[in-house]
Amino acid sequence: MSQIYGKVALIGLGLIAGSMAHAMRAAGLVGHIAGHAKSAESRDVALQLFCDSVAVTAAEAVRDADLIVLAVPVGAMGAIAAEIAPHLKPGAVVTDVGSVKGAVVEAVAPHIPAGVHFIPGHPLAGTEYSGPRSGFATLFQNRWWLLTPLPESDAAAIAQLRALLEGIGANVDEMDVAHHDLVLAVVSHVPHAIAYTMVGVADHMRRVSQSEVIKYSASGFRDFTRIAASDPVMWRDVFLTNKDAVLDILGRFTEELFVLQRAIRMEDGEHLHAYFTKTRAIRRGIIEAGQDTAAPDFGRGAEPTKGS
Amino acid sequence: MSQIYGKVALIGLGLIAGSMAHAMRAAGLVGHIAGHAKSAESRDVALQLFCDSVAVTAAEAVRDADLIVLAVPVGAMGAIAAEIAPHLKPGAVVTDVGSVKGAVVEAVAPHIPAGVHFIPGHPLAGTEYSGPRSGFATLFQNRWWLLTPLPESDAAAIAQLRALLEGIGANVDEMDVAHHDLVLAVVSHVPHAIAYTMVGVADHMRRVSQSEVIKYSASGFRDFTRIAASDPVMWRDVFLTNKDAVLDILGRFTEELFVLQRAIRMEDGEHLHAYFTKTRAIRRGIIEAGQDTAAPDFGRGAEPTKGS
Repeated sequence: MSQIYGKVALIGLGLIAGSMAHAMRAAGLVGHIAGHAKSAESRDVALQLFCDSVAVTAAEAVRDADLIVLAVPVGAMGAIAAEIAPHLKPGAVVTDVGSVKGAVVEAVAPHIPAGVHFIPGHPLAGTEYSGPRSGFATLFQNRWWLLTPLPESDAAAIAQLRALLEGIGANVDEMDVAHHDLVLAVVSHVPHAIAYTMVGVADHMRRVSQSEVIKYSASGFRDFTRIAASDPVMWRDVFLTNKDAVLDILGRFTEELFVLQRAIRMEDGEHLHAYFTKTRAIRRGIIEAGQDTAAPDFGRGAEPTKGS
Repeated sequence: MSQIYGKVALIGLGLIAGSMAHAMRAAGLVGHIAGHAKSAESRDVALQLFCDSVAVTAAEAVRDADLIVLAVPVGAMGAIAAEIAPHLKPGAVVTDVGSVKGAVVEAVAPHIPAGVHFIPGHPLAGTEYSGPRSGFATLFQNRWWLLTPLPESDAAAIAQLRALLEGIGANVDEMDVAHHDLVLAVVSHVPHAIAYTMVGVADHMRRVSQSEVIKYSASGFRDFTRIAASDPVMWRDVFLTNKDAVLDILGRFTEELFVLQRAIRMEDGEHLHAYFTKTRAIRRGIIEAGQDTAAPDFGRGAEPTKGS
């Protein structure tokens, strides 16, 4: 593939930035990859693994960059935008990879100078690991990357960014900022809140030992711990910055749970059976859409799984 | 391996019974596998795939059997036990595979004649599929199989059953009936109740289309739908028969969720960060115990996952 951007600046050097760098380099999509992170150790690792240069300040890293990727926690985006704003090249594209879009737009957009294109984005990809060593080139393969362009966003700049993201394997969709935050509250933020809570409950149970919780986790609990193992700073910021949508969906969840709880208490077998039958249809849809495999145990069986 | 039982009778011919039959046959652990299911179609499939004989009644299937496996929904165990009781061979072993043990013991034990050994059991293994075609020989490999022997259970009979279960790949643990039901409420039953509920909430959201929920499910929701896709009859019976432990844990879950919800509403970032950091430790324990793999995406990446 031919080069899409000359110099790219990655601000924040964690899982997403590292994976982008590996993937952009593998596909030959960019000329020079500069990086900045607050931590000197992260900068050293990034320089060894995937950056052509690293800078001690974000301002220095973005100099002459054609594409700037803000890959820091959502709560840190505003300060970074303020710092880099005076150093952005006219015509440059600024994007971000935050899990919440309304709060990022609010914090970043006011700092972006005229002539620079800000196109907020969000890759739906990740693992339970974080840091500059955790990235890998195939993270975005066949994963969705949502862009939430602003009314004033330039069509050519959007097309160029799409080309880069598709070049590293992602499927790109565009949607409105507020709709993004509601959809993500449903499919990601509230499921994470619930998973964290269930892991917390298990942790408190004194009559059930932690070793039992761990040994017998394959019976359902394991899937909760997986999503509850993500980066704590990232998730703190998600809940603080997508508060309204999260509280809305959490309220609906609690109501729905109380109805199920009442059916259990009243021993209403018909209600339970009808409810559990309905949820199967959504699961079938996910397999048909290719967003999961129906293989038993999802390939986990390939790993040794003998417990202690 | 040498033969452990002569004739085995499988009552109920779904995922668990089918997988046991495939595994016992592959390892040469039993002489003859008889089966019974209410459905003539299930009997036909089982006869083709894994049974040496099938019987129209459970009473006929258990005649002369050395091991009888009750593999029907928990709510059907009592009636089956009453039916087969007069036909059990002295010295035979009766076990079951129900997800709840207290209710099964209550329903089954009174029917078991003197001289027959009843040893309740529960394999922590399954897929989201059910029925006689869904079984496979490796389902129990390195999975836990919990036995909850009764005070009067015969040690030699337990040892013989353990040998069979270990012969088909399971790791066997023994525990008290009531403790089993509490542990399973924490690691399995309540996580399933929560997953069903979250899938229900997503299904009701009119502002978020079902296709969006499915397309973007990889960001967390997918793991909920997987555990919410299990057999509705089985799960109805689990909640009806392990009601007390499930309501206890659901109550703790709701309290815990309200604390998290309040921290989000009050924007208490410190609380959120501390809470999310703590849950990582349990996740690490599960990977260290070999009950999951840390590989990115759990091998799902091996399947084509391009969404529509």
